[in-house]
Amino acid sequence: MSNHVPYKIFITENDMPRFWLNLQAFLPEPLEPMLNPQTGEPVTAGELSQVFCEECVKQELNFTDKLIEIPEPVLEFYKMYRPSPVVRAYNLERVLDTPAEIYYKFEGTNTSGSHKLNSAIPQVYYAKQQGLTSVTTETGAGQWGTALSMAAAFYGLDLTVYMVKVSAQQKPYRKAVMETYGANVIPSPSETTQVGRSILAKDPETGGSLGCAISEAIEVSMKSDRCRYVLGSVMNHVLLHQSIVGLEAKIALDRYNVTPDIIIGCAGGGSNLGGLIAPYMADRLEGRNNVEFVAVEPASCPTLTRGRYAYDYGDTGRTTPLVKMYTLGSGFMPSPNHAGGLRYHGMSSVISKLVHDGYIKPRAVKQTTVFEAATMFCRCEGTLPAPESSHAIQVAIEEAIKCRETGEKKKILFGLTGTGYFDLAAYQEYREGTMTDYIPTDEELERGFASLPVIGE
Amino acid sequence: MSNHVPYKIFITENDMPRFWLNLQAFLPEPLEPMLNPQTGEPVTAGELSQVFCEECVKQELNFTDKLIEIPEPVLEFYKMYRPSPVVRAYNLERVLDTPAEIYYKFEGTNTSGSHKLNSAIPQVYYAKQQGLTSVTTETGAGQWGTALSMAAAFYGLDLTVYMVKVSAQQKPYRKAVMETYGANVIPSPSETTQVGRSILAKDPETGGSLGCAISEAIEVSMKSDRCRYVLGSVMNHVLLHQSIVGLEAKIALDRYNVTPDIIIGCAGGGSNLGGLIAPYMADRLEGRNNVEFVAVEPASCPTLTRGRYAYDYGDTGRTTPLVKMYTLGSGFMPSPNHAGGLRYHGMSSVISKLVHDGYIKPRAVKQTTVFEAATMFCRCEGTLPAPESSHAIQVAIEEAIKCRETGEKKKILFGLTGTGYFDLAAYQEYREGTMTDYIPTDEELERGFASLPVIGE
Repeated sequence: MSNHVPYKIFITENDMPRFWLNLQAFLPEPLEPMLNPQTGEPVTAGELSQVFCEECVKQELNFTDKLIEIPEPVLEFYKMYRPSPVVRAYNLERVLDTPAEIYYKFEGTNTSGSHKLNSAIPQVYYAKQQGLTSVTTETGAGQWGTALSMAAAFYGLDLTVYMVKVSAQQKPYRKAVMETYGANVIPSPSETTQVGRSILAKDPETGGSLGCAISEAIEVSMKSDRCRYVLGSVMNHVLLHQSIVGLEAKIALDRYNVTPDIIIGCAGGGSNLGGLIAPYMADRLEGRNNVEFVAVEPASCPTLTRGRYAYDYGDTGRTTPLVKMYTLGSGFMPSPNHAGGLRYHGMSSVISKLVHDGYIKPRAVKQTTVFEAATMFCRCEGTLPAPESSHAIQVAIEEAIKCRETGEKKKILFGLTGTGYFDLAAYQEYREGTMTDYIPTDEELERGFASLPVIGE
Repeated sequence: MSNHVPYKIFITENDMPRFWLNLQAFLPEPLEPMLNPQTGEPVTAGELSQVFCEECVKQELNFTDKLIEIPEPVLEFYKMYRPSPVVRAYNLERVLDTPAEIYYKFEGTNTSGSHKLNSAIPQVYYAKQQGLTSVTTETGAGQWGTALSMAAAFYGLDLTVYMVKVSAQQKPYRKAVMETYGANVIPSPSETTQVGRSILAKDPETGGSLGCAISEAIEVSMKSDRCRYVLGSVMNHVLLHQSIVGLEAKIALDRYNVTPDIIIGCAGGGSNLGGLIAPYMADRLEGRNNVEFVAVEPASCPTLTRGRYAYDYGDTGRTTPLVKMYTLGSGFMPSPNHAGGLRYHGMSSVISKLVHDGYIKPRAVKQTTVFEAATMFCRCEGTLPAPESSHAIQVAIEEAIKCRETGEKKKILFGLTGTGYFDLAAYQEYREGTMTDYIPTDEELERGFASLPVIGE
C-alpha cells in the first residue's frame, strides 16, 4: 500500500513506544569497559553510583536487555510534548529539484528547544524514585540546563545548574528561563565548591569553562547522599533514553512503508544520533536492513574524522572514568564554533564503536556551508534550525543533490534536533559575511593527542 | 461515546478545514461601515485597495459569505506547521485540584512563535496572485514581522519591514531572524519616507513609535503599484484567516464530544480571539450553543473594560479610515506592559460589536498576576507561554479554581497563542520582584478620549 505521505506524520499517544531500545545490547561484540583512572580497573556500579542515580548506572552497564521499559510517569511527561512529528520536506525537495524523498524528525517543539528533554525527564524521575531531593549539572549554551529545569519543576526536585560564567553573562535570558522553572543557576567558577574557590583564587577574573562547571557539579553531588549528578549526552543511558526519537520515527515511517536508505544526524556527544538511528541500527546489526548511517561533525572539531580511537577522560578536568572512544584528547581546545553542542573532544562510546567498525560513516562539514544550508532550509521549510541540526541538513542536501544527478529516488531521513532561536548572533554573522571557517592543523591536533592518558593506548 | 482524551489531540492533514469562517457574516446586524475621515462617507473598496491587496479588501468588506475557501497554495503552507494541537492540560488540572477540564489550542510551534503566521501566509499569497512584487509592514516586538518574513520567503516576494527603532536596537535578534528569511528591515523613523524624514528633522534622536512605523509602511505602499501594505491584526480579513485556529480546535474537540462551556482568549487587536471563537460564536449566534466567551486584556490598557464604543482612527498617526470599535482614543499612550501585543488603543470591530452586544465578556487582569499564572503554567505544562497568552491562562486558572469551589465540571478552552522565548527580560523582572502593575487613572483615560474624532460620536 502506498499512501500519500502527509507533510507531517504524527502518530497518536497510543502508538507511542513503551520501551526504549538499548543499542549497546545489539553490538556484535561488547563495548570495552570504562576504567578507573587510578587503578586501570573497570569501574564498578558502586563507584558510578556515587555520582549518578542507581537506575541510570544500571542502564549504563546493561549490555544484555534489548528493550527497557519506560516508566509510566515518564511516559506521562513524554505525552505533553511527544510524539514529535516526522516531516516530509516537500518544499526542500522542490527547491532542490531532487527525486529523493527527504524526511526529518523534529525535536524542537518543546521549550528547551531540543531533544535534551527526552533524557532529562527519566534522569530526574529516577532521582526522585531513589529518594533524592536534588540533582545538579553543568550547562554551557543552556539547552541542557533548560531541559533539566523543566523536568525538575515537573517532578518537584531541587536543581542546581553550574553555568559557565561567560555564558551566564552573555546569555542572561537562558539563565532567566531556567530560573523561571525554579532552578538555582550559579555562574561557574563559584565560591560554592572547593574546585571553584581554588580556580577563583588563581584567576578571579576567569570566565569559566565547561570543564570547570562539570567539576563543580560533580563535587556537589559527591558531597551529599541526597543529590546526584546528571549528564545530557555521551553516556550510554542517555543514548538509551534518546532512542524514543528513532522509535517514534520508525513507527511513523513504517505506516507509509518508508524505510530510509540513509539516516543522517549531527554528532556532538552522540546522544541525538544514537537515539535517531537506534531501531534502524539494531535491524542493521541483525541483518534486517542495509541502511547507510552518517554522523556529521564540524570540521573545526573533527572527533570522528581525525580523532584517535582510544581511552580518554570525558571531561577537560580529567575527573571522570576513562572511556574508549574517538577523541581529540581532553586537552584539545575546540575553536569557537557556533554549534556549541558539537564542540566536544570525545564521543559516545557506542557511536565510536559503530564508526570504528564501519557501520556509521563520519563526515565533517564547514561552518559557513552549514549556515548556507540552514538559511536555505528555513526559507522553504519554515523552521529556523539550530546550528547543530543544520550540520545534518547540509549533508541531507548534498545527498539530495547527488540524487538529482544520478536520478536515484533515495529516501533520506535526518534529525532536526532543535531550533535556532538562541543562535541568532551566529545567523547574523553569517549573513553579514563575518563568519569564518576554522580547521585545526595537524600540529594542533597533535597537541590535543598529547593529553591522552597513557593507559589503554 | 466517551473516549479517553489524550494529552494532545492532533487531527490529520486530511481533516484540516478547507474554508475559513467569516464571523462577520453571522452577526445579527451588520457592522457599521468604516468611514473616510475627510468626507465622513463609508470607504470604498477602491480606496482601501490603494493600501491593501484586492482580495483582502474583498474579504474585509464581505458581510455575506459565511465560508470562504482557503486557496490550495495557502493550505500547502499551512500543512507545514498545522494542524496545531489542542492540548488537555491534565497537569494543570492536577495542580489546581479542579474538577474542570482545561484545554488549550497551542499556536506557538512555528518559528514566528505565534498565530500571526496564519494570516501572513494568505496575505502574501494574495499579493503574489495580484502580480505585486513586494509587501511592506511595520513591527514592534517582531512577531508579526517574523511571520511575514517567513511567508514572503516562501512565496518569493520582497518584504520591507519598518521596525520601531528602539525595538530594533533592543531586540537585534528579532531583526536578525527576519533578515535570515530575506526581509529588508529598516529601523523607523528612517530617511526612506517623507514622514520618516520629517520626524527625524524634528527629533533626530527619536526611538520611533509603532504609529510612525505604520505611517512609513503605508506611505511606501501607496507610492507603488507593485507594493501593498499588510497588517497583522484588527482587520476583518485577519480575523477571517485566524478562524483556522478555532475551526481546527472544534474538529479536534468534537472528535471527543467535548463542547467547551467557556472559551477564553487574550485580546490586543482581537485577531487571535476572533479566530479561536469563530465556529463556536457562529453557533452561538445561530442559537446552537450557549458557550460563554471571555476576552482578557491587561488592566494597563483596558480598551474593552473601560474604553468607549465609538468611531476612531486605527493608528496613532491618524491616517487610517475611522472604525467603529472600543477604543481608548488614538492619543492614549499605553504604559509599558510586557505583553506588547496587547498594547493597542483600539480593537477589532467584530470583537467590539460582540462585546457591545453582550456575547463576549471582557475582563482585565494585572500584569504581576499574569506572570504568576505563566510561571505556574510552565512548571506543570512544560511550555513557556508568551505574556499575551498568559492573560488567558490567568482567567482559565481563575475559572478552574471556581469549579473546585462549586464542584462544577466545566470544560474550559483557552488560546495559547505563542511562546515567551523573546520575553525573558519580563520573566526575569517578575521573578526578581521589580515588575510593577500600572492601572491608568480616570483622568488619563479622559485625556485619551479627548483625542477621539468628533464624527460618529
